[in-house]
Amino acid sequence: MASIFSRIIAGEIPCYKVAENEQFFAFLDINPLAKGHTLVVPKLERDYIFDLDDKMLQDYILFAKKVAAAIMQVIPCQRVGLAVIGLDVPHAHIHLVPLNTANDINFAKPKLSFTSEEMQLISDAIHDKVIL
Amino acid sequence: MASIFSRIIAGEIPCYKVAENEQFFAFLDINPLAKGHTLVVPKLERDYIFDLDDKMLQDYILFAKKVAAAIMQVIPCQRVGLAVIGLDVPHAHIHLVPLNTANDINFAKPKLSFTSEEMQLISDAIHDKVIL
Repeated sequence: MASIFSRIIAGEIPCYKVAENEQFFAFLDINPLAKGHTLVVPKLERDYIFDLDDKMLQDYILFAKKVAAAIMQVIPCQRVGLAVIGLDVPHAHIHLVPLNTANDINFAKPKLSFTSEEMQLISDAIHDKVIL
Repeated sequence: MASIFSRIIAGEIPCYKVAENEQFFAFLDINPLAKGHTLVVPKLERDYIFDLDDKMLQDYILFAKKVAAAIMQVIPCQRVGLAVIGLDVPHAHIHLVPLNTANDINFAKPKLSFTSEEMQLISDAIHDKVIL
């Protein structure tokens, strides 16, 4: 069965899309740790990030770098942190989290909530700044 | 002034080294979240990971992949998680953390403590499995 991320990529489940190319897809985390928290996923469904082949892994980190640069332009933050945990959804995903303190990337924290209008504004603003 | 990581790389501060090539250096985190928690750093001192140029960033993630593969062989875990926060030491570093639950990568958790003999055994075992 397709992962929830593959269904998002296929448009079967709506999302707040931030960027897309042939290989990768980025969209806002629906349960964000911070405003602008974005998930970056390969279109190829692989459970574990390090099971991606070397070339795809290299392309993946560069795609994430470009998305992070756009987030930095839109969201006031010191930098964009990065986390790969992936014990929840069996489809590799990089969390890009705008950081102001080291604790901003603590997944045990209560998640933030934004209205759909706010999420749309955030994703549109980041999308406009992504240069692929 | 050289960062603490540059001083570790230069051998001025001791560490439990796991792997090294011309560009990168990996060693056990002295305040680990899990047994085998490893830091991977570029020898080039850059504060923010995404300030590394594209080629070095690509080499960096492949080096981390190889270290993660060795950790997986030595430490019983479901996978190796990855985090870049970097608001503490102004020298980019990837945390590689053996994971069994999603909360294993929570930096707010109390850190583990191992004796120097245990740390040496862990780093030696991982070092022996790294194929660069």
